[in-house]
Amino acid sequence: MTIQEIRDYLGQFFDAVELVGSGDGLISGPAKIETAQRGQVTFVANDKYVRFLASTGASLVIVHRSLCVDEFVHKTSFLKADDPYTAFVFLLQKFSPPLSIAAKGIASTAVIGEGVSIGEGVAIGEYAVIGDRCSIGRNTVIGAHSVLLHDVSVGEDVVFFPGVTCYHGTVVGNRVVIHSGSVIGADGFGFAPQKDGSYVKIPQMGIVEIGDDVEIGSNTTIDRATLGSTVIYRGAKIDNLVQIAHNCRIGEDTVIAAQAGISGSVKIGRQCMIGGQAGFAGHLELADKIQVAAKTGISKSFLQPGIALRGTPAQPMRDQLKHEAMMRNLGAMKEKLDRLDAEMKELKMK
Amino acid sequence: MTIQEIRDYLGQFFDAVELVGSGDGLISGPAKIETAQRGQVTFVANDKYVRFLASTGASLVIVHRSLCVDEFVHKTSFLKADDPYTAFVFLLQKFSPPLSIAAKGIASTAVIGEGVSIGEGVAIGEYAVIGDRCSIGRNTVIGAHSVLLHDVSVGEDVVFFPGVTCYHGTVVGNRVVIHSGSVIGADGFGFAPQKDGSYVKIPQMGIVEIGDDVEIGSNTTIDRATLGSTVIYRGAKIDNLVQIAHNCRIGEDTVIAAQAGISGSVKIGRQCMIGGQAGFAGHLELADKIQVAAKTGISKSFLQPGIALRGTPAQPMRDQLKHEAMMRNLGAMKEKLDRLDAEMKELKMK
Amino acid sequence: MTIQEIRDYLGQFFDAVELVGSGDGLISGPAKIETAQRGQVTFVANDKYVRFLASTGASLVIVHRSLCVDEFVHKTSFLKADDPYTAFVFLLQKFSPPLSIAAKGIASTAVIGEGVSIGEGVAIGEYAVIGDRCSIGRNTVIGAHSVLLHDVSVGEDVVFFPGVTCYHGTVVGNRVVIHSGSVIGADGFGFAPQKDGSYVKIPQMGIVEIGDDVEIGSNTTIDRATLGSTVIYRGAKIDNLVQIAHNCRIGEDTVIAAQAGISGSVKIGRQCMIGGQAGFAGHLELADKIQVAAKTGISKSFLQPGIALRGTPAQPMRDQLKHEAMMRNLGAMKEKLDRLDAEMKELKMK
Repeated sequence: MTIQEIRDYLGQFFDAVELVGSGDGLISGPAKIETAQRGQVTFVANDKYVRFLASTGASLVIVHRSLCVDEFVHKTSFLKADDPYTAFVFLLQKFSPPLSIAAKGIASTAVIGEGVSIGEGVAIGEYAVIGDRCSIGRNTVIGAHSVLLHDVSVGEDVVFFPGVTCYHGTVVGNRVVIHSGSVIGADGFGFAPQKDGSYVKIPQMGIVEIGDDVEIGSNTTIDRATLGSTVIYRGAKIDNLVQIAHNCRIGEDTVIAAQAGISGSVKIGRQCMIGGQAGFAGHLELADKIQVAAKTGISKSFLQPGIALRGTPAQPMRDQLKHEAMMRNLGAMKEKLDRLDAEMKELKMK
Repeated sequence: MTIQEIRDYLGQFFDAVELVGSGDGLISGPAKIETAQRGQVTFVANDKYVRFLASTGASLVIVHRSLCVDEFVHKTSFLKADDPYTAFVFLLQKFSPPLSIAAKGIASTAVIGEGVSIGEGVAIGEYAVIGDRCSIGRNTVIGAHSVLLHDVSVGEDVVFFPGVTCYHGTVVGNRVVIHSGSVIGADGFGFAPQKDGSYVKIPQMGIVEIGDDVEIGSNTTIDRATLGSTVIYRGAKIDNLVQIAHNCRIGEDTVIAAQAGISGSVKIGRQCMIGGQAGFAGHLELADKIQVAAKTGISKSFLQPGIALRGTPAQPMRDQLKHEAMMRNLGAMKEKLDRLDAEMKELKMK
Repeated sequence: MTIQEIRDYLGQFFDAVELVGSGDGLISGPAKIETAQRGQVTFVANDKYVRFLASTGASLVIVHRSLCVDEFVHKTSFLKADDPYTAFVFLLQKFSPPLSIAAKGIASTAVIGEGVSIGEGVAIGEYAVIGDRCSIGRNTVIGAHSVLLHDVSVGEDVVFFPGVTCYHGTVVGNRVVIHSGSVIGADGFGFAPQKDGSYVKIPQMGIVEIGDDVEIGSNTTIDRATLGSTVIYRGAKIDNLVQIAHNCRIGEDTVIAAQAGISGSVKIGRQCMIGGQAGFAGHLELADKIQVAAKTGISKSFLQPGIALRGTPAQPMRDQLKHEAMMRNLGAMKEKLDRLDAEMKELKMK
């Protein structure tokens, strides 16, 4: 790639990537600033590496936009960015050999059911099991040992890492990534109590629908709806070991950190951020753009968009912080109270 | 099925399902109330659908017991129930095609060890691995990719979804359901600290025993005992991502919601309800019928049956709610205290 | 084994195992004290079994060091230990048939990539998939259905139970044990927010490194670093369903209980003990030998070695217990406050 092509590539992901110096040079790969040679790209994200700018052999250096590089432009080109580290990581990926999860085509050990439709360029790994009537869109990769029960529909350009399980009827959009060990579409936890204290299972007849551009971490569980669908909308990002119960709806571009637990029939709006180990009681609703701190316990609906929640039971951040400050102040209150008590005794004795 | 047969079927699960109108008609399947035809069954669970009762073509409608349907009985039969929605879900299942997890018989790709006993009607899915000396009871389904180490005993009419792992010696009763990704019988977390700060593993020699009619969700972990058995008693229902440590005993018909964690040697009574993300310290005991709120942290035994627990550390619900109310009242206390302080100053100046 | 050999074996793990009586007898196996015969070993860990000492046929009994056994030494040898139960468990293991996870050699159904190096004595189970350029050290056991993506390096004497997944580039030391369902090296949870509210994935280019003698439970997830390595240092023990995010460093001989969650770039020192369901905010540091109570929420660094932490947000144990005591005392404070208020009113009326 030329330096100009690198600038244009990064410009797709980051604002205002500014080229300082020539855009013509060819870049063959990345390197550390101390060891970089002609034709390589490196970066400076930390002040203590600025001193290498004078000596580096790199043809291109990614730096913070505030760094003055005028004295080096005669020999080196620069890309100025807000976050040179992340920009460099993107370049690393661009230059790295492709990840191989499964070779193109269907592994000879994969078991493909009847009436399965498989698009062009699909890769299905060793020992994968694809149930009857599944469909798999173009260029999708199904990792080794993944199991799709019958009637699962997977879109295009999807990646299932090894060992993903989708129960029957699951619908997965395009460009979805699911990491190993996640189980999509297992039965929701529904049991009808009987007079003798035992339970009868409530059949879970619905499915899970996963929108485009969703990413799901490893060992996460998303349960099928009782009727209808549990829905993860477009662009949502879900971390590892998250529980999403039956009938939930997770809004577009909402992010859920590891070990959070969303009880049945919860509806979370768009662009929310849910912290790790947060928990939701069932049947409640969160408006758009709500931020939930880690470990928060949400016990009721919050319908005002954009607020931040914290505590168990959860309160708006300002109330909760005031509450926590007051709790930290308990010692002072107690002292004041004891002093007043003493003064009162004194007064009464007069 | 005839309408009368449907009534009798639902009567097995729900109290007092009352037939209003003729029981003779034949029902071929379910439908929405707006589109239902002669010979179909539908339901009304929401007031806004009551208006369709006049026009529906359905032969049978399931309604709430309080709904007056006298004016429609000339053309439609009714089943009155406490929960028409759930009753309808049961019917949906009755009429739906059977779920196919694995075809009857042993998949050609399954690996069966030596001395394995397999009952009539068993289905073992693709790539399942059954260790030496395992036994699998009649009509049990072992999903694809499930792994049983040696000497595992599984009862009759059991369903393992794909990817269940049972370590050696695990004993599973009849009619048990285990969802994908759950690991039964891995080593308990036991290590003996050494003088140099390192640890020596304490061998985990026991097993896990799972009683009849237990259901276990996906990606749950139940560890084998150090000696003897970790026991899940008959009828217990365990959700996804639950941790049950070595030597625990979970009582009959106890329900444990997702992401709860039960430390080693805990004994939970019968018909308890444990909320999501609740946590238990080790070596404690809960009496029967105790309800534990979500996110509760149980740090000691509670031996009085039937109480409800909440908070961290957990207290009986009444105490905890009083405590929480007092905490919410802290602001008012602080104001009163400051007012008294001011009044005291005033008094003293007199 | 002779009695003397048993003493020496236990002496490797436990302090001051004292032989009382003859060390010459041959021991063929363990038994319960009630049924033990000549040539068998048993134990007494509970006072109510002391009465069997007179009648037992065992040649060797493991007892607590405080127990006086003089009257029985004419017929029985004794090993005195601090924890006779655990010592007996170690003997049980010594005498038990070996656990069979996978037969020596490579199962015919395992798929081995190109350029894989496999040491002597390795066992690879059914349907395991070993990616290109992996290396597996001597006497290591890879359980059935485990999947190693490309370029994974596993040391000697390692045990992977069935169904372990290692992403590309993972490095595993010697004598490591990983239980079923754990996922090592999946992508860290990193996404760059875009102006339209959507996210772009930040490539996760690093790896996971696991030191010697680490044990990892079932269904645990350890994410690869963004760059560089997520590191689990020698001797750390990690329980089930634990989340360890990208770029973390877990110190030597640190123990992490089930369902704890460690956010990105956290650094935990050596010989720490982290309780179940504890949670860590990102980018913080814990000194050596810190004890974190179950369910604690750590929101900042603690750099003083050896302290104990508790509460959310976490505080040193002493502060937190004082805080909790004050909270329990709130009712008394309120009463005092109300009394003072009444007294004040009275005073002012005078």
